[in-house]
Amino acid sequence: MAELRLIEIREDILSDNQALAGQIREGLRAKRIFLMNLMASPGGGKTSLILETLKRLRGRFRMAVIEGDIDSQVDAEKIIREDIPAVQIRTGGFCHLDASMIEKALKELDLDGLDALIVENIGNLVCPAEFDIGSTRNVMILSVPEGDDKPLKYPLMFSVCDVLVVNKTDYLGMSDFDMEALKERVVRLNPGIRIFPVSCRTGQGIDDWAQWLAAEIEKTKQGGN
Amino acid sequence: MAELRLIEIREDILSDNQALAGQIREGLRAKRIFLMNLMASPGGGKTSLILETLKRLRGRFRMAVIEGDIDSQVDAEKIIREDIPAVQIRTGGFCHLDASMIEKALKELDLDGLDALIVENIGNLVCPAEFDIGSTRNVMILSVPEGDDKPLKYPLMFSVCDVLVVNKTDYLGMSDFDMEALKERVVRLNPGIRIFPVSCRTGQGIDDWAQWLAAEIEKTKQGGN
Repeated sequence: MAELRLIEIREDILSDNQALAGQIREGLRAKRIFLMNLMASPGGGKTSLILETLKRLRGRFRMAVIEGDIDSQVDAEKIIREDIPAVQIRTGGFCHLDASMIEKALKELDLDGLDALIVENIGNLVCPAEFDIGSTRNVMILSVPEGDDKPLKYPLMFSVCDVLVVNKTDYLGMSDFDMEALKERVVRLNPGIRIFPVSCRTGQGIDDWAQWLAAEIEKTKQGGN
Repeated sequence: MAELRLIEIREDILSDNQALAGQIREGLRAKRIFLMNLMASPGGGKTSLILETLKRLRGRFRMAVIEGDIDSQVDAEKIIREDIPAVQIRTGGFCHLDASMIEKALKELDLDGLDALIVENIGNLVCPAEFDIGSTRNVMILSVPEGDDKPLKYPLMFSVCDVLVVNKTDYLGMSDFDMEALKERVVRLNPGIRIFPVSCRTGQGIDDWAQWLAAEIEKTKQGGN
């Protein structure tokens, strides 16, 4: 019988990605730039949260946005209308961003003029959780209409995030979404996670979220993080 | 309004892949090794065709097989039981092989001792058609139970192949598969394609197919192709 040689592609890809993500994180830390990786399902409110956040922090920090999308640039167009620099990554079918894509996007930005970068990942609760993009902090949005059972179905995503933003709290009265049950499930997966209930539509809770983010950006500016 | 920068990931990936595939093809040509890229739907009969082909050609040529699979190595085990060298590429979820994966697999083989390599691609009629792997010839299998309408649904696959093997002809009497309609649809997409109706189960047509392949391997050995 001949010998069987085995090549594992996925592990190679994940470990190559991890190495590059580490380099990106170190490079940004040296420049004291904060990078937030924002993940959520499609329609969870990523672009809305970014726009609300920019409104509150743009006076205080120099910010830019990297928008990931499978095949459009409408989100990036919303950002540049606010006169914030944006890079659109069109993956053409890929369901997540990876470190090599972020490396390309960073080359399009004037990093010396920036304090903070927000990356809007592809709408997907699975693959983005596996691919480190060199972020300082990972943030996910769960929106109320998606249901309070999502931590059971997508445990990795809830585990890798520093913050969970629970968006669309204005829907809470209209659904059987159980916020306490959600928090319990999330904290069981990730005891250190911060949870901010917000509504991008009414503005409820956004100030608290923005205050947390501002403190993190400030920490990075001071050489911490 | 700020400026919008756009990064197209899919096109970058496809053009990087094309460049590497060209290098692989040139390298193999210099060593006079023939590489066949075998594509089909899951269950079309790729491994069966490879085993039948090896039976007929292994006395004449020094052959090896590269097996692509999402998450198993059963196909490669069937090959090494025939005492033919095999490399298993486990993609861990990816739906196609690409040139970089073939480059890794080639490093696992003693190329100086080989005349021909058969690559069994991932079972999928879509993405494998887009990724050149550096092959000398592309071959696809369509099996009778899949239906004669597949050229209408997967035109790119039928366009990039040099040969269409129509497998499982022993099912022809039991279905409304129209071989003439199929041929017409295929030739409209790809006038130069060769079509071999075969049955790996009964052996019908396999000799004709193997004869074509032997002639192509021979051409490569003589410095043609």
